Amino acid sequence: MNLIVDVGNTYVKFAVFDNGNLIYKMSFKLNEFKMQYKNLKKAYPKLNKAIVSSVGHLSKKEIALIESDMPITELNVETNLPFENLYATPKTLGVDRIALVSASVDQFLDNNVLIIDAGTCITYDFITKDNKYLGGAISPGIRLRYKALHSLTANLPLLETKVPKNIIGDSTESSIHSGVVNGVVNEIDGIIGQYLKEYSDLTVILTGGDTKFLLNQLKNTIFANSDFLLEGLNFILEYNSK
Amino acid sequence: MNLIVDVGNTYVKFAVFDNGNLIYKMSFKLNEFKMQYKNLKKAYPKLNKAIVSSVGHLSKKEIALIESDMPITELNVETNLPFENLYATPKTLGVDRIALVSASVDQFLDNNVLIIDAGTCITYDFITKDNKYLGGAISPGIRLRYKALHSLTANLPLLETKVPKNIIGDSTESSIHSGVVNGVVNEIDGIIGQYLKEYSDLTVILTGGDTKFLLNQLKNTIFANSDFLLEGLNFILEYNSK
Repeated sequence: MNLIVDVGNTYVKFAVFDNGNLIYKMSFKLNEFKMQYKNLKKAYPKLNKAIVSSVGHLSKKEIALIESDMPITELNVETNLPFENLYATPKTLGVDRIALVSASVDQFLDNNVLIIDAGTCITYDFITKDNKYLGGAISPGIRLRYKALHSLTANLPLLETKVPKNIIGDSTESSIHSGVVNGVVNEIDGIIGQYLKEYSDLTVILTGGDTKFLLNQLKNTIFANSDFLLEGLNFILEYNSK
Repeated sequence: MNLIVDVGNTYVKFAVFDNGNLIYKMSFKLNEFKMQYKNLKKAYPKLNKAIVSSVGHLSKKEIALIESDMPITELNVETNLPFENLYATPKTLGVDRIALVSASVDQFLDNNVLIIDAGTCITYDFITKDNKYLGGAISPGIRLRYKALHSLTANLPLLETKVPKNIIGDSTESSIHSGVVNGVVNEIDGIIGQYLKEYSDLTVILTGGDTKFLLNQLKNTIFANSDFLLEGLNFILEYNSK
C-alpha cells in the first residue's frame, strides 16, 4: 500500500493507493504534518512505501518520521523516470510536470499525449507515442489572470471566477469574465488545434484545479482526470520500487 | 488645428491633427507638462481647439494653461458620443474604449467592427453596423502575463517578450514564451472566430502597443492601426465642435 506525499508551498496532499487504485486523499496545512501523518498511519497501517514530491519544503524531521515506518522515494532530478526526457534543461523540469508525464506513460503508452494542467498556472506537456517527452508551455491560470488584472493595473476590480454569459460583456465585470474565461478557453482549444495539425492521433488530458470549471466549455474532445498528478506519483513510486 | 491630450497614469501623449490627419505625436512624463505644452504651442501656433482624455490626472492649473489658448472638450461620461452606447453600465466605460469605438464610427461606418487593443490589457470592443456599441471583453496583455507568472507565483523568472520558436518549449524560458505569446495569439484568433460565427461581415482592427509584435502571428485578416485611439479622440473633438 502506497503513500503519496505532495508538498506545495502552503499545503500538503496525502494520497493512498492500493493495487494502483486511489483509495484516499486529503490536503492540510504544512504545520499540521505530524498530527495528520500519525492519523493516516493509524487509518492505513498497511502503508509500506512512500514517495515525496516537493515544490515546498518538508523538514528532515518530517522525512524521518515517514522513514521510520517505510522506505521513501524522493522525486527530484536524480529519480529514475519512465520516459525519455528531451527537455533541453531537464534539471529545471518541475516535479508536477514530471508526475503528469509519468501518469501519461502509465495510462496512455504508445499514444501522442498532450497534458493540460489548469491550476495556478496552465502547463502544457507533450509526450510522443515513442515515449519521448518534448516539453510544452506555461501560461497564467484562470485565477492568476483575474488577480493580474486587479493587482497589476490601476482600476480593475478583483472578481470571483464565473462562466461568462456572453462573449460580449456589457459591464466592467462581465467584460473581465469574458476576457479571462473565454480567453483561456480559446487559448486551450487553439493550442490543442495546433498540436492536432502536427499529430493527428493525439490524446488530450485535462487535469488540475480548474478541470471541472473548464470541461464543458472546451470544444475539443479531452479526457478529464483530476487525480492525474497523484496517479503519476504512484506510478513513479512503483517504477522505482521494482 | 486640433490638440489631443491623452493623459495616462504616468505619461501624457500630445498629438496634433490638421484636417483629420495626424501630423505630430509625442509622449512625456506628467511633471514636464508645462514645458512640453509651451514648446508644442510654439511649434504649432495654429492649434485652436483641444480634447483632453484622462485616466490619470491633469491639475486645474494645467487645464487652465491650455484653456487660455483654446477651448477644451473634456472626454468623460457627459461627452456627446457619435454612437449609441448599449453598455449596461455606460458610466464605467473607459475613455480609451470610447475613443476606439469613436474611431471605428468615423472610419468604418456601416460595418460590424471588432476593435482589439493589445496594450497593458487586451480590450475587445464590438460595434454593430447600425452604430450600436454592445461591449466586449478585457483580458491581461502580453507583459501583464509575463509579470503575473513571475510576481504571482513562487519560482518563475521575469522574461522579456519574445516570439516563441516553437509551440513546444523545451526549457522554462521557452515554455513561458510559448505559453504567453502563443496563448495570446490563440486567444485573439479564437475570439475573432467566435465573432465571425455570429457576424460574418466583420471588420477587425488591431491597435495598442503590441500591434506590431502580434500582427504577423495572427491568422485572421485584420487592419493594424497604432494611432486608432488618437484618431478616435480627434473625431470626438470634431463631433463636439459642430
